[in-house]
Amino acid sequence: MTPEIRSEMAAEITCAAGRLARAYFADLGNLCVSRKGHQDFVSAADHAVELLMRERLRSEFPDDAVIGEEHDPIEGTSGFTWVIDPIDGTTNFVSGIPAWTVVLAGVQDGRTVCGVIYDPCHDELFVAMEGKGAWMNREILQIGRGTDLLSGSLGLGYSNRRDARGVVRLIELLLARGGVFVRNASGALSLAYVASGRFLGYIEEHMNAWDCLAGQLLISEAGGRIEHQSTADILRDGGRIVVAAPGVFEEVQKLADSAFKDK
Amino acid sequence: MTPEIRSEMAAEITCAAGRLARAYFADLGNLCVSRKGHQDFVSAADHAVELLMRERLRSEFPDDAVIGEEHDPIEGTSGFTWVIDPIDGTTNFVSGIPAWTVVLAGVQDGRTVCGVIYDPCHDELFVAMEGKGAWMNREILQIGRGTDLLSGSLGLGYSNRRDARGVVRLIELLLARGGVFVRNASGALSLAYVASGRFLGYIEEHMNAWDCLAGQLLISEAGGRIEHQSTADILRDGGRIVVAAPGVFEEVQKLADSAFKDK
Repeated sequence: MTPEIRSEMAAEITCAAGRLARAYFADLGNLCVSRKGHQDFVSAADHAVELLMRERLRSEFPDDAVIGEEHDPIEGTSGFTWVIDPIDGTTNFVSGIPAWTVVLAGVQDGRTVCGVIYDPCHDELFVAMEGKGAWMNREILQIGRGTDLLSGSLGLGYSNRRDARGVVRLIELLLARGGVFVRNASGALSLAYVASGRFLGYIEEHMNAWDCLAGQLLISEAGGRIEHQSTADILRDGGRIVVAAPGVFEEVQKLADSAFKDK
Repeated sequence: MTPEIRSEMAAEITCAAGRLARAYFADLGNLCVSRKGHQDFVSAADHAVELLMRERLRSEFPDDAVIGEEHDPIEGTSGFTWVIDPIDGTTNFVSGIPAWTVVLAGVQDGRTVCGVIYDPCHDELFVAMEGKGAWMNREILQIGRGTDLLSGSLGLGYSNRRDARGVVRLIELLLARGGVFVRNASGALSLAYVASGRFLGYIEEHMNAWDCLAGQLLISEAGGRIEHQSTADILRDGGRIVVAAPGVFEEVQKLADSAFKDK
């Protein structure tokens, strides 16, 4: 199985999943929504979209492992693991806000080798292959050319998996340096925006693997910089995410270091 | 001139302006962008869109006054004033992020009597007429049914017209109460999201008239609550904006009071 074939198939499956998600989004009045935890929603759409992706993956790659946000992991024998986020930005989705994505990453030998983020409301498909590059709708992605925090907006995110003091301090420090933040409530969409130069960078104190692996590869393949993480660690525990255009990465990383220490 | 005719014409002009803006948005590579101030951008699209709106308004309502973000005010003799924001969310616009709107409000005898917010990327047209109601694409708008800060997301905004400590404290207080914020970098879009129940409410320490008048009327006509402001004061100096679904308004207002005092 070549990386190209896996990557093409990952893009195709993610698009099919996105079309299903969009059909649910067009009929929100009939959508069943429940809470997984504090300010953490899940809908019938999340479940259905993940099941579609699992079914397609199982049929194309029966020996691969699958991890997804909403269902139990499936073990594999090939050494290849698929990581699914059926809807990243569920709060936006269930509120009718067109800022959410479908995400699929492929991990082999402890490295993310392909990553797909699909924004169905805007038909923007972001695809990255390790060592081969990153594209949006088949155009080569270009990371931002910002050289300091004044050259654009920094995306940020947070969840109740971490104490709120970190993100408050991050915002305080960023604004004091003249920066601007956006929180659009879809981490994967934000990472795709970094990869395409729409955001300078992105910081979140803790993200899960399904939210971040595809976006990290996109940014890295688009010429951006990402804070080094072991994929195995992220798969197990999630981790801190700091990514940015090369000209501003060090400043962004220092900001994260200052914000998240000695809270 | 009946209010209905003005309102219909305002919607038509705003849609035409939105189509022009969208044509620029589809060709960002050739867009001329400059800075008005710190992290404050303006583009050739802002100017062209405002000029189109002024021309149409002048032709339909030659006796009305016009105020717009990007050009000098025009005095009138009718006692009616049009207030234009050609592109609200210019930073998103010039970055390629589909979260920006075209805004037009009509003010008569010190009251906002009609308000239009158009989101061209999603073809969502929000229209309100004083005393008559509010609609999105001709469907009646429904304000959110949230009863506390845990029932959804609060939109927020800030600019360098106010000290950053206010918004930092706002976020700190909101998160401490278990709330969630979104900053999508288009104040008018956020106000339209409150009017349509997608956000619980919205807080910004200072907005200009062109950013807020249409949205305030939308929220009020959709059954929401807005902090009382004199339209004359807002036209002159801008003002603090606190709006929310009725079930959560008092909590949102208290939050703003706590955040913006004793900074």
